[in-house]
Amino acid sequence: MEPTKTTAPSGDAKQSAKPARAPFEGNVIFVGKKEPMNYVLALVGRFNAGAASVELKARGRTISKAVDITQILKNRFLSDVRIADVKLSTEEVENEDGTKSRVSSMSVTLSR
Amino acid sequence: MEPTKTTAPSGDAKQSAKPARAPFEGNVIFVGKKEPMNYVLALVGRFNAGAASVELKARGRTISKAVDITQILKNRFLSDVRIADVKLSTEEVENEDGTKSRVSSMSVTLSR
Repeated sequence: MEPTKTTAPSGDAKQSAKPARAPFEGNVIFVGKKEPMNYVLALVGRFNAGAASVELKARGRTISKAVDITQILKNRFLSDVRIADVKLSTEEVENEDGTKSRVSSMSVTLSR
Repeated sequence: MEPTKTTAPSGDAKQSAKPARAPFEGNVIFVGKKEPMNYVLALVGRFNAGAASVELKARGRTISKAVDITQILKNRFLSDVRIADVKLSTEEVENEDGTKSRVSSMSVTLSR
């Protein structure tokens, strides 16, 4: 007769199996053609999954949408999230015909 | 015989009589419906008139245009101008029918 192995879940045991923060550092979400709320919910998801900060990036016309997203997030969902940094720059993008264009870009670091 | 009184200009004396920068502090340009280059040239004018810093403000859809303006200014006109601060916020505006809407806004402080 073999002894029944009972491995009771110890509660504490699995604490160390939660290196949740590390993989979320450098977390980036690119703003594209979807509705703003899609990106707001994506951000809420990242923060609720343990991210300490998430970077929201946008180019050209989507920059205005990115600002809306940060405001909806802060005012309606996660009031403890703050805008830690905003960077404005110019990026070079390749067009379909191989030529290059310069486009304005914005990167917002949101931190909790 | 009386000693001649010579009050040599002490050098330090007139330092305080140079509030030249002051009137330009708090310089603000609002981005509206004009072409980006109009605002770029307005900024160039303010800096060339002696401004140490100018604030560029935009709301809603014009936020993307404001970022373009900062990039054109830095890349093509005044390479020594830097983006000292970027603030993102929400403003309440009154509509024609008296109701109120909230709109995202951006304020960029450009300094030389």
